[in-house]
Amino acid sequence: MKRIAIQGERGSFHDIAAHAYFTDEQVQLTCCTTFEEVFEKVGEDPTAIAMLAIENTIAGSLLHNYELLRASGTTVVGEQRLHIQHCICCLPDDDWSTVVEVHSHPVALMQCRSFLGNHPGIKAVEAEDTAGAAAYIAQKQCRGWAAICSAEAARLYGMKILEDSIEDNKHNFTRFLVACHPHKADFLRPLTEVDKASIVFSLPHEEGSLSKVLTILSFYDINLTKIQSLPVIGHEWEYLFYVDLTFDNLTRYRQSIDAITPLVKSIKILGEYREH
Amino acid sequence: MKRIAIQGERGSFHDIAAHAYFTDEQVQLTCCTTFEEVFEKVGEDPTAIAMLAIENTIAGSLLHNYELLRASGTTVVGEQRLHIQHCICCLPDDDWSTVVEVHSHPVALMQCRSFLGNHPGIKAVEAEDTAGAAAYIAQKQCRGWAAICSAEAARLYGMKILEDSIEDNKHNFTRFLVACHPHKADFLRPLTEVDKASIVFSLPHEEGSLSKVLTILSFYDINLTKIQSLPVIGHEWEYLFYVDLTFDNLTRYRQSIDAITPLVKSIKILGEYREH
Repeated sequence: MKRIAIQGERGSFHDIAAHAYFTDEQVQLTCCTTFEEVFEKVGEDPTAIAMLAIENTIAGSLLHNYELLRASGTTVVGEQRLHIQHCICCLPDDDWSTVVEVHSHPVALMQCRSFLGNHPGIKAVEAEDTAGAAAYIAQKQCRGWAAICSAEAARLYGMKILEDSIEDNKHNFTRFLVACHPHKADFLRPLTEVDKASIVFSLPHEEGSLSKVLTILSFYDINLTKIQSLPVIGHEWEYLFYVDLTFDNLTRYRQSIDAITPLVKSIKILGEYREH
Repeated sequence: MKRIAIQGERGSFHDIAAHAYFTDEQVQLTCCTTFEEVFEKVGEDPTAIAMLAIENTIAGSLLHNYELLRASGTTVVGEQRLHIQHCICCLPDDDWSTVVEVHSHPVALMQCRSFLGNHPGIKAVEAEDTAGAAAYIAQKQCRGWAAICSAEAARLYGMKILEDSIEDNKHNFTRFLVACHPHKADFLRPLTEVDKASIVFSLPHEEGSLSKVLTILSFYDINLTKIQSLPVIGHEWEYLFYVDLTFDNLTRYRQSIDAITPLVKSIKILGEYREH
């Protein structure tokens, strides 16, 4: 049995991602309101596992989650990709003619902008969570209210789906990371299966400092699958680089990290895991 | 006189950025509902200029705007950084005891999450625009409604500021780009003043292909101030790289572009401009 801390309620995309990742196992969810709370839970309970969205094909990287991950003391042990599809749902006795408000997470509302634009009579109201909005409407029997959430959440809370796949862009994928206490990492993914790593390093604002690091990585046959620079807040000329690497040989990867370490200002391995 | 197309209303952060950039000039705004419409306006009127947010220190890059920019046929001729501060405002006769709803753009609502969490009695409702929400409340005299917007917008629409600087993170900066028809570029920024460029290129998923490109740029004394990779939708093993470059010597920069061109799958100069 795995205890997974997620942001959101049962039926949320984090819940779906957790079940997709731990597909053959029993999952016990700890539902949190914020990502900060997710990491607090994992800090309090060393057997708990965090599941958190890190990037979306439309919204981009969740920079705040990168920051939380970096500061959390947890390590990444896995990743899960999920196709994000939104439906609009309401109480069984409501329908298009009676719905006046739609509640959801602001990101979900944004991802259904064209749809909402075609329904100007329905007011879009922010909620903490997609599935949480459906749960609230079902529990409080809010007539005239709809939620935007996954079809799984709609079914879970006994809501009627008015329309499915209402997201503007059908290429809507989110990548989730699985993180836990470092002592638990080897239990969750054997090191022999590791072929991907997420690292973050900082570099001084010097010509060519990034190219040196990437050249060394390429000499060691390490692939880059993602790179994102961020200015370090308060240090205007310093940059953080979040980089995902894939490799065939764990030893070569470890050697490449040793080789770039003297050339960076600071470096942190966010985790080593198996590519999804 | 400059005709500037922005997403949002008068008093929006795009408006403030436009006036900050064209500080000594008369600005005539064309207010659009979407960024798509901004580029349509500039497409229809070759003398019009687009001003668009491209990244925020908290929310990250606006990937959709990068896509629109790449497809638009316009060229970037300038950039503007702006410190983003939100206030909550209402009609002069309302106050904390009478406000029951707060309306704003979903990104602004997200950036004031802690503040909203401390006021659970106020319902957060999505609007198209921060300043637009204030304008609507003022025009329709919506008693009990508040808006989250800039203090400038609150004053512009005669609203009462209940509290200023309500954003969770005070290091909230947005970078805006100024884009126009390529024929107009030299008129808006003399090439002699150019010391920065934004480019986008794609690379095959090959070990070391990015490091080769960055090494060549460093040989030509070109600095990287931003790099962001994006998977090409529909081509799983291909990546787009959005890169910002700074340099002292325009000729050397042009030579470096010639030098990397044979090594990339495709390359596009989004614009050449003066660093803010």
